Amino acid sequence: MPPPPSSTAPVAVLGCGLIGESWSALFLAHGLDVVAWDPDGAVLAALPQRVERLLGQLQALGTGTAGHGRLSVVQSVAAAVGDAGWIQENAPEKTAVKHSLYAEVEAAARPDAVIASSTSSLTWSDLAAGVVRRERLVTAHPFNPPHLMPLVELFAADAQTLARAEAFYRGLGRDTVALKKDAVGHIANRLASALWREAVNIVAEGIADVADVDAALVHGPGLRWSVIGAHMAYHLGGGPGGIAHYLDHLGPSQERRWATLGSPSLTPAVRQLLVDGIADEAAGRSIAALEADRDRGLMLALAARQTAKQGEDA
Amino acid sequence: MPPPPSSTAPVAVLGCGLIGESWSALFLAHGLDVVAWDPDGAVLAALPQRVERLLGQLQALGTGTAGHGRLSVVQSVAAAVGDAGWIQENAPEKTAVKHSLYAEVEAAARPDAVIASSTSSLTWSDLAAGVVRRERLVTAHPFNPPHLMPLVELFAADAQTLARAEAFYRGLGRDTVALKKDAVGHIANRLASALWREAVNIVAEGIADVADVDAALVHGPGLRWSVIGAHMAYHLGGGPGGIAHYLDHLGPSQERRWATLGSPSLTPAVRQLLVDGIADEAAGRSIAALEADRDRGLMLALAARQTAKQGEDA
Repeated sequence: MPPPPSSTAPVAVLGCGLIGESWSALFLAHGLDVVAWDPDGAVLAALPQRVERLLGQLQALGTGTAGHGRLSVVQSVAAAVGDAGWIQENAPEKTAVKHSLYAEVEAAARPDAVIASSTSSLTWSDLAAGVVRRERLVTAHPFNPPHLMPLVELFAADAQTLARAEAFYRGLGRDTVALKKDAVGHIANRLASALWREAVNIVAEGIADVADVDAALVHGPGLRWSVIGAHMAYHLGGGPGGIAHYLDHLGPSQERRWATLGSPSLTPAVRQLLVDGIADEAAGRSIAALEADRDRGLMLALAARQTAKQGEDA
Repeated sequence: MPPPPSSTAPVAVLGCGLIGESWSALFLAHGLDVVAWDPDGAVLAALPQRVERLLGQLQALGTGTAGHGRLSVVQSVAAAVGDAGWIQENAPEKTAVKHSLYAEVEAAARPDAVIASSTSSLTWSDLAAGVVRRERLVTAHPFNPPHLMPLVELFAADAQTLARAEAFYRGLGRDTVALKKDAVGHIANRLASALWREAVNIVAEGIADVADVDAALVHGPGLRWSVIGAHMAYHLGGGPGGIAHYLDHLGPSQERRWATLGSPSLTPAVRQLLVDGIADEAAGRSIAALEADRDRGLMLALAARQTAKQGEDA
């Protein structure tokens, strides 16, 4: 069990939708106090009960410390950030909305507080344009839901802020990666978009149905990539000569295959193929039932990882 | 535990490299007799010992039946296929080599024997050009290593042969998918190539290092795709409105992101970035050590799946 983050100052959670509630549960499970704000009073009022359910999942996984932190909900940004050492911002993905929020944050926050944005589709540069003390801004993009998925993708212009962010999220049991320059979609969503483009193409070209594309991914490359990355997979695919051998002997055939991949458009006809295909794959299961299946599968996969990690540490 | 394949005729394994030895272990673990042939006598002589190691992995997973089948090695194609009900061909990925092998097979095989090719990079149509009785040819592409990875991708022009292949591989605990038309790279390797192209691009553009790209995949989308497919992930990403809502609201932003993905070439400079990056990621671990880590992680992930499946069946 890693030590909890060293700061005893509370964490401010700004925006309490799916991402904010999940972050809140993770922070609380690691003994941090959370002060949460959302512009929607109903969302804020429902937060403690929603967080309770997620804390149950974390408890089942054995994540976090023995004692939970305390959750408070407050009616203003200033009240949320006033004492905070860490500020996790999960506002809508609109630059103007975030810039306006940052102005309120900077007026009330401690000078040493870090502003961490969960943004998935905006870049650090987009956001920094609305921040005065840019050296304390970091993009910290979690993979949804952040209380279960280990990945946090970081970018900060300031090396010290980046180091603080790495220490903070690793202290919460997250696996962080650092971008060397900011990019739309960070790393993971760029990879996911590239794969999905071909997944759509396979359906659009009539090579296979939606359910079979998903099954091929889950039982093939998805399973492999939950254990080793794509680059490392080709290193091992190269035999004793590794990636160098692979590139020399199979690089040209990979380039030829790249040339055969599709560039589909989401036309009405393709849209209909995807909607019909998902209906076949779901086979009557509601979204709630599918989500419950996903969470159960994720929790089992995470438990398997913990076992693997304990084996490496032993 | 699914019932073992109904046929009591032996399985012929033609080509006993990494794929052939892995198939052999899977067949044997399910009580099937295997008659194996390889043009290289040394490969053939070493096969029983190599298969023994893989059978140990399957036993640890609880895969297969109580009694193992019997493994024989023979010196000719005719001797391998003479009694076989199923013929699993794992010859080198060269059309001429496979065509020449098929001529030998057809001269000696039972008329009702199925010829299943493990080909990863050739298509059914490529192979069928060298087969007289094409109705019994099926491409049955496993994901490496086939004794651990559940996926088998199938294509056959004949519906009855396809149905026999589905029953055969499912009886071995495999998860099969069927292509509606044959395509280079089937489904899984098309998806893997599409993802890797962007993984290379991220390194080539200096956005992130090889190790961070791999870590982002393993701790983010890879973990998710080991549980649910890419299409289904966007269905759940659409909230209560599902994939239709997702496509209507976020389809345009996916298309814009697709436009930002890269089309790298494996130039000498990019090759060097990948080779150096893998060296950093491997951090001194040999290929054998990395493979052992991968297999251990895979086996834990597979055990977690079995638990999940038992939960669904209960």
